[in-house]
Amino acid sequence: MRFATISTSAGPIAAVQLADGRFLPIAAACETEGVAHAALRQGSLQAVIEGGAAALNALAPLLAKANAGDSGLAALAVTDAVMLAPLPMPRKNVFCVGRNYAEHIAEGARAQNTTVAVTEVPVYFTKPSTAVIGPGATVPIFPHVSTQIDYEVELAIIIGTAGRDIPKDRAYDHVWGYTVLNDVTARDVQRRHGGQYFKGKGLDGSCPMGPVVVTRDELADPQNLALRCLVNGEVRQNSTTAQMIFDIPTLIASLSEGLTLEPGDILATGTPSGVGYAMTPPNFLKDGDTVTCEVEGIGQLTNPVRTV
Amino acid sequence: MRFATISTSAGPIAAVQLADGRFLPIAAACETEGVAHAALRQGSLQAVIEGGAAALNALAPLLAKANAGDSGLAALAVTDAVMLAPLPMPRKNVFCVGRNYAEHIAEGARAQNTTVAVTEVPVYFTKPSTAVIGPGATVPIFPHVSTQIDYEVELAIIIGTAGRDIPKDRAYDHVWGYTVLNDVTARDVQRRHGGQYFKGKGLDGSCPMGPVVVTRDELADPQNLALRCLVNGEVRQNSTTAQMIFDIPTLIASLSEGLTLEPGDILATGTPSGVGYAMTPPNFLKDGDTVTCEVEGIGQLTNPVRTV
Repeated sequence: MRFATISTSAGPIAAVQLADGRFLPIAAACETEGVAHAALRQGSLQAVIEGGAAALNALAPLLAKANAGDSGLAALAVTDAVMLAPLPMPRKNVFCVGRNYAEHIAEGARAQNTTVAVTEVPVYFTKPSTAVIGPGATVPIFPHVSTQIDYEVELAIIIGTAGRDIPKDRAYDHVWGYTVLNDVTARDVQRRHGGQYFKGKGLDGSCPMGPVVVTRDELADPQNLALRCLVNGEVRQNSTTAQMIFDIPTLIASLSEGLTLEPGDILATGTPSGVGYAMTPPNFLKDGDTVTCEVEGIGQLTNPVRTV
Repeated sequence: MRFATISTSAGPIAAVQLADGRFLPIAAACETEGVAHAALRQGSLQAVIEGGAAALNALAPLLAKANAGDSGLAALAVTDAVMLAPLPMPRKNVFCVGRNYAEHIAEGARAQNTTVAVTEVPVYFTKPSTAVIGPGATVPIFPHVSTQIDYEVELAIIIGTAGRDIPKDRAYDHVWGYTVLNDVTARDVQRRHGGQYFKGKGLDGSCPMGPVVVTRDELADPQNLALRCLVNGEVRQNSTTAQMIFDIPTLIASLSEGLTLEPGDILATGTPSGVGYAMTPPNFLKDGDTVTCEVEGIGQLTNPVRTV
């Protein structure tokens, strides 16, 4: 299934995508069909995720019925949905991984005239929930803070089942789904703050996500997905998740060592080469640009860039 | 005022401390007195913080009445409260500052036989909400993850009023209160993960907080508070917040550059010298230890350390 969070006058609501592309509001569909499932009735994607397999099982017949053209459900479906980030207010910071594609490490080393080693274990940092924005929302440039705003397309994992010390061979059992994430980075800020990534990765609007979360079963092989980033239609990043240094099970196993992952947690898995700061000359995002991140099987995440 | 979150059979509830040390459950006191203030009735410290000055003003007469020995309110007061972290489930990761006391930077450089410079701007990282524990709760040692668990006493700021690009001279307007925080750190993990602090600072139970949050008005000069850390009664850290390299207004101004702070956000302000890894030989926390962090005017935060 494919889920989005859409904006309504009554606030953000979780919706599931129909075969024709429209979005079916989940809580309203349950109301119409008399489905009492609490997680679905709650109306947020976080609640659906926490509802686990039971929630998806309860939703499946509604989705089938709507796809079959049931008049009551079809009437609910939204054509021109204003989409928010699928999890518009994550309950904690977004977990992120640095340096997870060899060519991105190499281009960074070249750009800084230094040597950047592949680490033996993944490098983690976070982005605050205030950074999260949805498709179509503006990535702001704050000129007094940064003049080096850069893009980074990433596959992001949504955790479904809580766990600590998750073994690699059980890692996918804890995955609920996947989305596209743009790890927008203020390169100058990142370097200025003592080498810790957080501040340069944490500015408002620096974490576009979406357009949808697809459930685990939708992607036959998440470790073999094309991912690209385009700026004003020009392809800047073009790689595949097969190029990750640390694969998805390794990332989950390593992150969860002594650290409990919870339903709704988001883990961005790193970016391939092609970022703006490693271009010659460096080519950062600027006012008026449009940046599109796409991951095969999930969709396109497009955001305008504006000086504010 | 001095606030705590206490554990009850009905879940965590916010309480305000009476002059005699007992805790008055806030929502129950409002019920008894017929005070309709929504933020107070909600029953969490997060809601009280979001309620701003109006919530504190509504609470003041109840506190005065209970302190004066009003029989109905006094009867509600809890003597042997099991205290949780004041904000037991923060809405985002805890913001932290590294390298904010010169002597701590110097001892770290000595311990690593290297040079660690004072940065021109503060160094920020985060701890996840799953790390947060309260007074008396166990700081776990996961031997398969780390054998170098260390303590770091810190003054933590609780944000009251949202803001971005907060100027230094308005920074205190955004402060709601203060608490004590132990930035427990797995030194080996911190170094292993490519120099990014998050993973080594993010293990479960690695963020003891409390025992109380004191409101801003309780501390005449937050930049002149004694702070100490004791392990099994032995003083290990002994300094004052006057020794901070970046003072509180600078930390808030810098962190909020392009990044919105929200009510209930927590900012730990860095630790002074005396940490275990810089001792000769290094002296890490071990099973059976008791670690106490104290900040003048706030209180003592004591936690047992146990191998799990």
